[in-house]
Amino acid sequence: MKKTFVSILIGIMLASTQLCAQQALWGGQEIKSPEINSDNTVTFRLYAPKGGEVKLAGDWIQGTEVMAKNDKGLWSYTTAVMPSNLYSYSFIVDDVRVIDPNNVYADRDVATLSNIFIIKGGNADLYSVNKVPHGSVTRRWYESPGNEMSRRVTIYTPAGYESGKEKYPVLYLLHGMGGDEEAWMALGRTSQILDNLIAEGKAKPMIVVMTNGNVAQEAAPGESSIGLQKPNFMLPHTMDGKMEETFKDVIKFVEDNYRVIADKQGRAIAGLSMGGYHSLHISRYYPNTFDYVGLFSPAISPREDVESPVYKDIDGSLKAQYKNGVKLYWIAIGKTDFLYKQVTDYRQKLDGFGIKYIYHESEGGHTWSNWRDYMIEFVPQLFK
Amino acid sequence: MKKTFVSILIGIMLASTQLCAQQALWGGQEIKSPEINSDNTVTFRLYAPKGGEVKLAGDWIQGTEVMAKNDKGLWSYTTAVMPSNLYSYSFIVDDVRVIDPNNVYADRDVATLSNIFIIKGGNADLYSVNKVPHGSVTRRWYESPGNEMSRRVTIYTPAGYESGKEKYPVLYLLHGMGGDEEAWMALGRTSQILDNLIAEGKAKPMIVVMTNGNVAQEAAPGESSIGLQKPNFMLPHTMDGKMEETFKDVIKFVEDNYRVIADKQGRAIAGLSMGGYHSLHISRYYPNTFDYVGLFSPAISPREDVESPVYKDIDGSLKAQYKNGVKLYWIAIGKTDFLYKQVTDYRQKLDGFGIKYIYHESEGGHTWSNWRDYMIEFVPQLFK
Repeated sequence: MKKTFVSILIGIMLASTQLCAQQALWGGQEIKSPEINSDNTVTFRLYAPKGGEVKLAGDWIQGTEVMAKNDKGLWSYTTAVMPSNLYSYSFIVDDVRVIDPNNVYADRDVATLSNIFIIKGGNADLYSVNKVPHGSVTRRWYESPGNEMSRRVTIYTPAGYESGKEKYPVLYLLHGMGGDEEAWMALGRTSQILDNLIAEGKAKPMIVVMTNGNVAQEAAPGESSIGLQKPNFMLPHTMDGKMEETFKDVIKFVEDNYRVIADKQGRAIAGLSMGGYHSLHISRYYPNTFDYVGLFSPAISPREDVESPVYKDIDGSLKAQYKNGVKLYWIAIGKTDFLYKQVTDYRQKLDGFGIKYIYHESEGGHTWSNWRDYMIEFVPQLFK
Repeated sequence: MKKTFVSILIGIMLASTQLCAQQALWGGQEIKSPEINSDNTVTFRLYAPKGGEVKLAGDWIQGTEVMAKNDKGLWSYTTAVMPSNLYSYSFIVDDVRVIDPNNVYADRDVATLSNIFIIKGGNADLYSVNKVPHGSVTRRWYESPGNEMSRRVTIYTPAGYESGKEKYPVLYLLHGMGGDEEAWMALGRTSQILDNLIAEGKAKPMIVVMTNGNVAQEAAPGESSIGLQKPNFMLPHTMDGKMEETFKDVIKFVEDNYRVIADKQGRAIAGLSMGGYHSLHISRYYPNTFDYVGLFSPAISPREDVESPVYKDIDGSLKAQYKNGVKLYWIAIGKTDFLYKQVTDYRQKLDGFGIKYIYHESEGGHTWSNWRDYMIEFVPQLFK
């Protein structure tokens, strides 16, 4: 009978691993890639005996790094010591971009899958799943009459929400162009960051509502009735006012369906890039709705070719928003971000109006690394 | 200002696509792969001008298919007409297994990522997101005192659950070896199948609870405090009785936290392979708990080296389970499944005991294609 069991196991293993090609084993040994060494250097490996050139691309690398091949056909590359962060990477084998076959952890950013790894010992400890109470993450559909559509939304509820009775504040968290309701969960590591900040007592327990800011879409690629189509970068209604106009549908859904503090002091809105743009314009278009606003590397100015009531009186509505009172208006951008000048101009405008805000300038540019850092800075300031 | 906006867009695009290598464009045209042609043949393409040999591997292919290279370095292969299904595939470029860089849809099965595509017009219409009311899917953590651990569980609640007051029946749905609480959602397409069957009136609205059957794990790979480790195939406590013994923790969590029909007629349990084994042994170990049992390609016999009260009196508890009444005991297996003989022997035993069951024999073997089909057969029979 023991024999039977072993043969079952082997059978199951063969069935399950039929698509695992031979490169998972190299010289009888399993290939470890990426290997995070004890000194926080990282070794990448790929078994490609016929490869003429294998390079490493990563979000910490300018261009690519050439990997070295040994006499067994195993390519490898070891980095310098890497600071704590979540990194993404891929290989380029003779000009073909490939995912590391030995790393199953991959996130989609817009229309590209990349592998990820984490170097702990700093901010990335907050991007990690730790032994703390975990919130729940629900993918749910709501009706948007303004878009005549059912739409998908990702909702984080903090640990204790389901079993409790108290009302919670809500952070509406918006993605950038090409993103969707999955973006902040994937490379944004929102549920991990919130779990950890709340467990450390650094952030108030809150609900986080991650909407899809492409109002022409029902849902993220692969999750809507258009099926498994290749994701489009530019969609109808991109930054044309429709997102702002119909945002009330999201708020109504959340406040009708969750135990929330349904007033201004219980609402925050923040977003990255296009989501920062949406946060700027939504918060002034509904000028007495949000006590907390976060603009992470935001785009600022509307398209000149767009006609929308949303953009009719930007300056007037900004002044009205400020007059109504905003507890925190937080702007963050990296020094090398291509939107730096736009943000500088916007700050000058706010200064001219006497509108108060907090400005956070970081190193770097338009990156997930910065947006995660901004979350860690921003979230503890909310609902205090 | 228009110029500024355009430059912003370009900047965002560059930032977002920095990792997309040149192969996404070929001769100025975007590469479409896979392309599902109007006759349901499928064309795969990969730009690999330096590649010496590119092959296609897929779950409908025995071995691999060799792709052809044109003078521009674009490799392609077109299949025969393919029946409706969800398929998975990858490329092998000079012996390196790679994901299709032009297809962002990839699912992890155990320790391997593969691309997926869908051919509609048959059962796969049920695997697709359609314009029907959608249930919610929540990743949540529960306490398992029996495992001294917080553990992650995936819960599908049907459309209308949150806004209603009625109580729902529950299907506990268990994965196979190497799987986890994500398996039935990924290649199993559970939320799509349930949404569609319920919308068509073919299945009763029900809650589906997808547990993690590796009781040594908190959660699926990447979702637990061990971090982004390479998934292990064989884990402690695999099929040693601990899953069965501690399953009461899951039931208690569900019945304490959801509006459910908390009695036998409101409970079903089903699973594939190791999950079929778990369903068999859980349902007889708690012999008056489930009115519906589904064994999909199940493993049957416990390990001989295991000492567990769960396996003390298998025959006696099976007879007790039958005597207590089971509305549906459903067994399904493919003709070429490596577990076929085990299942035949088990059926003979049940026949000998006079225990009634329904037997469904399909073509094929130990595959997700069969398990999705079994779901479509099984779920409409529940809670009637």
